[in-house]
Formats: sequence, structure tokens, C-alpha cells
Amino acid sequence: MTEALVVFTPSGKRGRFPLGTPVLTAARQLGVDLDSVCGGRGICSKCQVSPGFGEFPKHGVTVSETALSDWNAVEERYDQKRGLKKGRRLGCQATVQGDVVIDVPAESQVHKQVVRKAASTREITMNPATRLYYVEVEEPDMHEPSGDLQRLAAALKRDWSIEGIEPPPLAVMKKLQRVLRKGDWKATVALWADHKAARPALVDVWPGYFEGRLYGLAIDLGSTTIAAHLTDLRNGQVVASAGVMNPQIRFGEDLMSRVSYVMMNPGGDVEMTHVVREALDGLAVELAAEADISPEQIVEATIVCNPVMHHLLLGIDPVELGQAPFALATSEAVTVRTDELDLASINAGSRVYLLPCIAGHVGADCAAVALSEEPYTSDDLVLICDVGTNAEILLGTKDRVLACSSPTGPAFEGAQISSGQRAAPGAIERIEIDPVTKEPRFKVIGSDLCSTEDGFAAATAVTGVTGICGSGIIEAVAEMRMAGLMDASGLIGSAVQTGTERCIPDGRTHAYVVYDGRADGGPLITVTQGDIRAIQLAKSALFAGARLLMDALETDKVDRVVLAGAFGAHISPKHAMVLGMIPDCALEKVTSAGNAAGTGARIALCDITARARIEAEVLNIHKVETAIEPRFQEHFVAANAIPHKTAAFPELSKVLTLPQVSFNTGADNGRRRRRRG
Amino acid sequence: MTEALVVFTPSGKRGRFPLGTPVLTAARQLGVDLDSVCGGRGICSKCQVSPGFGEFPKHGVTVSETALSDWNAVEERYDQKRGLKKGRRLGCQATVQGDVVIDVPAESQVHKQVVRKAASTREITMNPATRLYYVEVEEPDMHEPSGDLQRLAAALKRDWSIEGIEPPPLAVMKKLQRVLRKGDWKATVALWADHKAARPALVDVWPGYFEGRLYGLAIDLGSTTIAAHLTDLRNGQVVASAGVMNPQIRFGEDLMSRVSYVMMNPGGDVEMTHVVREALDGLAVELAAEADISPEQIVEATIVCNPVMHHLLLGIDPVELGQAPFALATSEAVTVRTDELDLASINAGSRVYLLPCIAGHVGADCAAVALSEEPYTSDDLVLICDVGTNAEILLGTKDRVLACSSPTGPAFEGAQISSGQRAAPGAIERIEIDPVTKEPRFKVIGSDLCSTEDGFAAATAVTGVTGICGSGIIEAVAEMRMAGLMDASGLIGSAVQTGTERCIPDGRTHAYVVYDGRADGGPLITVTQGDIRAIQLAKSALFAGARLLMDALETDKVDRVVLAGAFGAHISPKHAMVLGMIPDCALEKVTSAGNAAGTGARIALCDITARARIEAEVLNIHKVETAIEPRFQEHFVAANAIPHKTAAFPELSKVLTLPQVSFNTGADNGRRRRRRG
Repeated sequence: MTEALVVFTPSGKRGRFPLGTPVLTAARQLGVDLDSVCGGRGICSKCQVSPGFGEFPKHGVTVSETALSDWNAVEERYDQKRGLKKGRRLGCQATVQGDVVIDVPAESQVHKQVVRKAASTREITMNPATRLYYVEVEEPDMHEPSGDLQRLAAALKRDWSIEGIEPPPLAVMKKLQRVLRKGDWKATVALWADHKAARPALVDVWPGYFEGRLYGLAIDLGSTTIAAHLTDLRNGQVVASAGVMNPQIRFGEDLMSRVSYVMMNPGGDVEMTHVVREALDGLAVELAAEADISPEQIVEATIVCNPVMHHLLLGIDPVELGQAPFALATSEAVTVRTDELDLASINAGSRVYLLPCIAGHVGADCAAVALSEEPYTSDDLVLICDVGTNAEILLGTKDRVLACSSPTGPAFEGAQISSGQRAAPGAIERIEIDPVTKEPRFKVIGSDLCSTEDGFAAATAVTGVTGICGSGIIEAVAEMRMAGLMDASGLIGSAVQTGTERCIPDGRTHAYVVYDGRADGGPLITVTQGDIRAIQLAKSALFAGARLLMDALETDKVDRVVLAGAFGAHISPKHAMVLGMIPDCALEKVTSAGNAAGTGARIALCDITARARIEAEVLNIHKVETAIEPRFQEHFVAANAIPHKTAAFPELSKVLTLPQVSFNTGADNGRRRRRRG
Repeated sequence: MTEALVVFTPSGKRGRFPLGTPVLTAARQLGVDLDSVCGGRGICSKCQVSPGFGEFPKHGVTVSETALSDWNAVEERYDQKRGLKKGRRLGCQATVQGDVVIDVPAESQVHKQVVRKAASTREITMNPATRLYYVEVEEPDMHEPSGDLQRLAAALKRDWSIEGIEPPPLAVMKKLQRVLRKGDWKATVALWADHKAARPALVDVWPGYFEGRLYGLAIDLGSTTIAAHLTDLRNGQVVASAGVMNPQIRFGEDLMSRVSYVMMNPGGDVEMTHVVREALDGLAVELAAEADISPEQIVEATIVCNPVMHHLLLGIDPVELGQAPFALATSEAVTVRTDELDLASINAGSRVYLLPCIAGHVGADCAAVALSEEPYTSDDLVLICDVGTNAEILLGTKDRVLACSSPTGPAFEGAQISSGQRAAPGAIERIEIDPVTKEPRFKVIGSDLCSTEDGFAAATAVTGVTGICGSGIIEAVAEMRMAGLMDASGLIGSAVQTGTERCIPDGRTHAYVVYDGRADGGPLITVTQGDIRAIQLAKSALFAGARLLMDALETDKVDRVVLAGAFGAHISPKHAMVLGMIPDCALEKVTSAGNAAGTGARIALCDITARARIEAEVLNIHKVETAIEPRFQEHFVAANAIPHKTAAFPELSKVLTLPQVSFNTGADNGRRRRRRG
């Protein structure tokens, strides 16, 4: 026998190879997805395989114990140094000696699939733009006077079949000389190639075999808050997350007030660009510290944001976005070098990818939500609401997708709420109010205990109970409605009207006490009438946007609803429905997607084919402009009630009956009249 | 008749077109090289043509006076505003009405050929990387929400068939928005595309039709001096030139002393990088001012330099170039953005092209000389010597080309010469010494008069006579030898020995007085024994390098010699031969090419196909390393005499006989023994 049959699982790929062929070589020739950074030199250990022995009737193979070469010195050394799992072999060392079945474990696959989240069966295929390659470079020879860079390129061609690389920035060029000599002409290089790159670009280089990993930042740059996820580019795992308030808030709480700031203060955009870039760089440093890596290991970033944030980040005057025809300076996806964005802390050779914008009011954040939730593949009519300071709303099926943006204001993010705060340990994120006793039970971020359970005080001793985050305020308001503490018009009843001392006077209106920690020096956490009004404005804007898209599709009903929000825990479908944030829909058809925009940023970070996909899809998404649509105002005004008056809620009525209460004594009514006047 | 014959000259291209076809359209369809920046809108006037009328037997056409449409309002307006030469029409306005012969004048051709210099028949075809395009961009439409950049790209595709552009740097992106609105959605863009670009990149954008021109800088970055030529990218014309001393001189006069400085002072390269970039930026500003253009109109630069300057400019540590195996960090041509080189004054969107290096000691300057003088196309064996602080030497034919670099030191550039100076007004550049009277006659830069002619004093009153430049010192030393003032060993005779009072004592040796301006407060300009020794060292190094290449080709004779030098006037072939700078050759076969490296930089600036050509050719040029070749030292020592003793000079002997003199009295001999010891 001079040849043997090799069967790879799980792919099922098979072929006959001469005895002595390394398993890695066989895998490559068959196109089996088996990883290797060192190119088969027994250094990187990425090519681990699990050979199977015995009978394999399915494959028609009997594998003897001698089907692979003996455990060799390289494997022995690796096992002693770092440990090789039982039954594993290094694919570059073990050679074929007989018919064999070889399993490629998930972690040895380059294009490994990563389960995105427990609630979803969707998987991300790892296909990042930046990857590591180990090379052994020819030493310089006076008689063959090619440069270090050219000999590196030759090694990449010889070992990795990479035909030509883009010249690196001078900073890397400068470093290459020293690194090659320090590693005795062995080096690991990071190459970047996205879906549009003609050839890979040299990002960075390390002496010898680089033990570290490469990371990317998936950034959700909101008007109010900025969230960043440090992601391992080998397996898509988020190793650290952090969020900060958007420092531009001091120039204006919502987008239009920031655009106004620029109009009133020429050059004001320069300041805003500066502070947001500074914040992003700070987040990168913070995340690297948290994950205990060097910021230089961060070699990529993807950013999703609305158009105004997009322009302000890029240093483009946003004023055009504040007036019809709301023209974007650029609508396509943007790839920029980190130095252009002043991101001085992360790797100087890295690139930042901004997802495409859909229109002047519908940004890269909406594109990211679309990438995450894929309405363009949906068989039934799906409504996707991404709730932030602006709501990004998508409605459609695989045949047609519409999108709009609606200015909900920061209430859903816990801002402009009297006890509001961002989602951080100590924030109330879940709340129930007993309809009989009117007493609340809640959970805070950082503890799994309910506030009425034993040990709650001890469990929250460090963080305290500090305020209510976005998802908490949605639940609180809805629970108040369900418990009869508030009527359909949004008025909070008095202690007498509601029968609970938790309804306390607050000026000419009332507030509901969720938590009173004053005895221990803590806060008094209430939901005030002002909070209810802020939530009503926000939810009316959200509902009006969704309704406008339904009008455009000439439908009164959607098949399912996906709720997403950048911050806090997942939004509770039932509470969102009670609040009237979304149109009526069977409750089991309302799901919560968490931070869909952030997920879209992560997908684009992990998989360059996803970038190509969303760039193509956004061209087919039809934008509806809320700002100039008179029906938006009509829908907005009509949506004020809780839930609201414009539509029946037959589906919601199936699962609960809202109390018929009214607390209108004229006092608040008078206030409302003044506000309208 | 519904069609007519159109014949274009000088191309001879012809075709039949429907009556009413604009001449520009006909030209484009036939592939006739007729320029247009505005795309046929009657704005740019680049498409001027000269129709011919009457009989054209050669073309078989009779052209009536009505063969073109009447002079129209656009042409009338243009003529009134700026004047149209008699007989000229605008190709985009005049339409075909009958058989016609149309001449395209040189200035209306895109790929116009530019005669490089009077002495040469070589022509440069204008084919620069950066060109202007006028476009009319669609206004933004709320219902078709594409970005400004995307609508600009669509206009370029529609009007210019340009499929996709590289996204611009953020600085241009930021500007685009304002420019498009200022120009009422009409704009002129500069696009850059070199021989390797997959698609053009947006460099800059101007509102409306941009009346200005684009310029490039061709820079010859020498160890001692930096020369820059501001070149019009439409016609290749040099509109201003300037030179400065290389400010790195304070870190070391020659390359190896600068490398040593870095070795002794870690970080010293950073300082040297800074000062040379500052000098380049200063030159750009100076040239723009001289040509009365905005520095932003400079949209490209090409740089030629030796490998050490190359690395120091790019910010790469040059130490590797100072020790075997003299490894370059990168040998291929380099294209960098201006901000990477801190060239803050020129257009921020522009790119800088550095020609490829041949080897660790044979740089982009040598490649530029090759591009200019093309030894690789030569039928006979040509020796090309580019004389600077380092000499770049090429030897070969179309079958094989060798190259080396030789450290001649700065004497040929007038440095380390007692009365030496760089080539500037007032410098002696031509000199003759009467063999009978031993009296000198000379010319200075800035005046056409000879020093013995009437009016010389008046003509040089402003500049004065200030010193001797590189070509002047070569002539002075050779003339002293020919006039019998100096013997073959390089010794200057005394007044008694030579019979002229111009030979004055100078310490233990003698000096020859070329000019004595002391009576009028001017300088005493002499050639000292030390000057002779410096020239001897320089010419020995040059000759030894040339000889080494001849050894490699196993030849004792070359067919022709091309002398080139960055500074001063052209080197005199006869004097170079008398000095023994070059091997013996028929005098009429020795030509002077001026600044060949600078010419190479200009060619690469004007024609991107030349960049492709030299990048391919350098791979075939075989480098000989002088630093490790023992025969180099032998040749060097043997070449000390003037001319020298290693070879006969049969060709030189045909035209002149050098006096048999000897001034060796022992004094200088003793000095020479000490120097050797």
C-alpha cells in the first residue's frame, strides 16, 4: 500500500494520499477548513485534530491504531509545554500511514461558526478582515539586494500563497527592520483584507511566533451613550464591554440640538468631533486594561451610529443633516485609518469600518440592526424597533424593507427621567407592582435576587440601589398602568385615589415611590408625573414611526415585532405593549433582541462577508422620512394614551385587562392645556 | 448627404460621422488624443482644434468653408473673454457639416510629448498620475438618499466613464460638502491614479470650473544639496527651480558619518528625518511663491535619493545600510501620503513617489539616472557617471546593465574646496588657463560674459565673483594640468617653476590664484594643494567604481560615456578626461547629461508608464558592491595621478598632449608619505 484514504469530519471531505503525507497537507489539498498560523512548522498548535480509530461503517473505513505516524518530538514538546488534549494530534506533525478518519474540532477551524446568543439559532461565521501569519523570511544577501519588506512579501507568497501585499504605513515599515532581526528572521504578521481589498495590507509585525491574540472593537456610538465590546478575532467572543456617556451631551442632549449648536457656533463641530474621538480612545484603553491585553492588540474596529454622530465622528459638518433634503456627505460604508480618527491608543496599522448609512436620518445603526435581525430574509412581516435617543425602525419581509428613524429622545435610555441612570450595577432593570397591594418588587443590575427576597440588602450592599435604567423605566410605567396607579391618559393617582401611601404628592402632581433608601443614606427613587410625560413623548414618537411604515405598506397589522435597545437588559415585550410603544401583536410574537445595533457591529467585525451583505442590502431598503411626513405628527398626537387610542389591542386584550381608572381632577389637565398652548 | 468624412491630423485617424456631430465627439470615437477637462461643456477650452479648408490631396478630401458649423455664442464668449487664436475652434462646439480635415495642435493633446532638452531627441509623453475632471453633480434628493460623495462618483462615471473612485482622506471628504454647494453642484476634481492603482483616488475638489493648473515637484535629494523643480503637470514645463543645502550636513558631511551619528546617538535619525522633511516643505513653499501659485496646487511629488537619504526621509533607521550585508528596509518604489512625510504645505490629498532602490548602496537616484539615460536600451557599451557626494555609476548595453555607487565625497559639489561653493550666481563655472601666459579666463553663473571681456565687472557687479562651483573646480584642476601649473602627481608648482606670479606660496605648498577681488572688498579665489588632493580622492573613487564595473564585464574600453551631475553647469567632457575621472574614450563620445537624476525624477513625475518601466528595469540591473570588493581599493590607489597610471589614454592623446612637468621637490612628497603612513 502506497496510498491511504483520509476522511475528514465533520465536512465529510475525503481523498487518497501517499503514505507519509502530513494531515495538514491533506486537509489543505481537500479544502478542509483546518487552521494554521505557523504554516505547518509545529509552532502555533492551531491545527489540532482528533483521529478516530476502529470501524467507521458510515465512511466505509476501518482505522488501525497505526493509521497515523507515532507521536513525535514536536508534539511531545508542545504537550509538555502547554498540554495537548487527550486524543489530539498536531495536524502538521502526524502523517498518514493508513486509512484514517480525522475530526477537525471547532476550535481548529478557521471559519468557525460562533453561536451568537442563546435565544437565537443564528450563527456568525468567523471571517475577520485581520489575521495572523507566521513566516520565516530569507536573510538579506548582499548579492541579491532586495529589501526586508520584499523578502517578507516573498515569504508570504511562498508559505501562504499571498500574491503581493499593500505597503504598510511608515510606522510599520520603520519597525519591520528591527522586528525581523530580533526574531532572527522569523516573524508573525497581521494582514488586513476586507471584502473590497485588492490585496492584503500589512498591519503589524511581531518577532518570532506571536503568542498573543488579535482583538477588535465593536462600537455602538449612540447620541446619549457609547458602548464598546472588545472582541477576540479568533472566536468572536466578547472579552470585555464598557460604556460611557457621550461627552457631546454638553453641546446638546439630542441630535438636533447638537446640529443647532454647530449652526450657532461655527467650528462647534470640531469640538464635538474632538470629544467623541477622545471618548472612543479612552474606551479602548479601558477595555484593554480590563482584558489585560496591550491596546496594540486591538487591530480593528467597527462603528455603528446615526448619521449626525457619523458626520461628527468623521469631522464632517452635520448641518446639512438638520435641514431638508437631509443630504449625507457620504452614504456608503467608510473605512478609515485610526490616525484619521485620532485613535492613538490602538494599533497604528488598524482600520475602522463604519457601516453604511441608509439616508440622512437613517444611519449606520439602522443598517447594523438590519444586519443583526435580517428583515430582508423574513418570510413574515417583521417590525424591528431599536430604541435609543433615536429609534431606528425597520418593517418588511424578504420582498421589501422600509426604514425610518424617529426622535424618541433620551427617556428610554434613562436620561431626562428623575431617577434615571444608565445601565450599570445598582440600576433597577426589572420591576413588578402587585395589583392588590400596589407594592413593588424589583431587581437591580449586578444581583440575581429580587428586592423582596432575603439577602437582597446584603447582595446590593456594595452597589446600592441607585436609580432606574431604560428597561426599568419602561416596566415601571407599564406596571403602574397595570396596577391601576396611573390612568390611560398617563395621570398618576393620589394616595387616596390609588389606596397606597407610595403615591406621594409632588408639586401639583403625584409620584410613585419605588424605593426609599434615605434611612441608610440612599436615594429616594420615584416615578414622577414628569417621567411619565417623557415616556409618553418617547413612546408616541416610536409608535408613530412604526405606524408610518405600516401606512406605507398599507397594513394595520404586523406578524411579529423585534424590540432592541442599546442599553439595559432586554426590553420586556409585555410592558412595551402595555405602554403602547409598538402596534398590537400576539405577545409570543414579540421578542427582545438586546443591543441589535451592537450585535450588527460585532457581526461586521467578525465576518467581512457580512459587510458585503449589508452594503448590498441597504441599497434595497426604502427610507421613509418622518420629518416631512404630515401623518407622522397625526400619529404622534394620537398615540399619547397608554396604550393609545388609535388602534385596538385585540392581542394584548387576550392576555390581560387593563384597569379602567381615571385620575383627571383638572389640575394636570390645566397643565396640559398650557403646554399645548 | 447625411454623413461626412472627418480626418484628424497629425494622427491621420479618420471616420464618417452624421452631420451635426461635435468635433470632440468624433475625436473621442476615433480615439484621437484631444483634451477636455469640462467634458464638452464649452468651459475649459482645452479641446481647441484648427480646421483646414481647401484641397487635401494627401487625404483625398476637399474641404469647403461650410464644413463646420458657424462660430457659436459659446465660442464668441470665450474669444471675447480670453481670446481664441485665429483659425481655432472649440472642438465641443463646432459640429461636422461636411468633409473636413482637423488638426489637433500639440497643446490640445492630453498625452502631448514634451521635448526633454535641446541636446537630446528623447521626448517625455505627458501621462501624469493626477488630472482634473469637471463634473456636474446631481443635487441631493430626499427620496433618493445617496451621499454627496456617491453622487460625485456617479457623475464621474456618467461623464468620464470612471468606474468607482477610492474614498478620499477625511480632510477632502469634509471639504466636498461645502465645495459642491458653493459651486452650485458643479465642481472640478483632481483624481490620482498611478500605474498600480486599481481605481483613481480623489485628491482634491474645487467649486465650479477650476481655472488653475496642477503642479508636481521633482526632487533630487542629495547628501549635500537638495534640488526641487516645480513642474506644470499639463505640459511638463519646469516653472521654478530651487536648491538648498541638505540641513543634515550638520550631523555629518557624508553618508557614512551620518550613519555613524545614528549609531553613536540613538534617536539621531529622528532629528535627521525631521530636518530634511522641513527642508523639503520649505522648498515647496519657496517654489510656490516664486511661481505665484498656491502650495495647494502642488498635488504630487517624486523624490530621487541615495539609500541612506531614502531611509532617513522615510524615518527608517539607516544603520543597516552602514554594515554588510547593507540590507534595505524596502527596495521597491514607495508611494506615501504627504502627511506621512510631514509635507504640510502642499496639497493634503497628494502622494509622494520615491523611485525604487537598486541595492543598499545604489539608490533611487541611480534608478532615476537609468530612467533618464536608459542604458538598458543602448546598442553600444555606455558608461554613465552621475557625480555627486556619492557617484552613481551604470555600465552596460541593452543586454546587461551593471551599477555601483562610489563614495566620492563632496568635492565635486564644491564642498571641502577652499573657494568652493554651490552653483549659484557669482560662482565660477567655466575656466580656461592660457598655456603660455598662465592667465585664467572664466565665466560665472548669472553672466554670459567672459572675465576678460569688457563689461564683465559691470555685469557681475551685483553678484560679484564669489567662489568656484563643482563643474568649475573640475575645469580649474584640469586646466592647471594642461597649462603645466601642476604635474601628473597633482603637485602645484611654485612661481619660479611655473613662471607665473599666480602660483603663490600657501604654507609648505602652493596655490594658484584664479581671481583676486580683495582690492574691491571681494574674495581671493585660489585653487590650493588641498583642493587638488580632495579632487584627486574624488576622481580616484569615481574612476575605481567605473573600472570595477568594466572588470565585471571583462572589458577595458567603453563605447561612450555620459557625465551627469546634480549641480552646476554640465561637466566638460574634455576636462573630466584630463582629470582622469573617467576611462579613456573618444572625446566626441563623451557627453554631458546635466542633472540626470533630477531629469529621472521629472520623467517619473510626468509619466506614470515611466514609473512602471523603471520598476521593471531595476530588477534586471546587476549591482556591484564597491565596499567589499578588494579590487576597488587597488583601482582607487592606482588612479591617483592626473590622468592616472593604470591605463593608457590613447583617445585623449589624439586631441592633446599634456606637458611633461614634475614639481616634486620632496616637501609635498614628505607630506604624502605621512598621509599614507
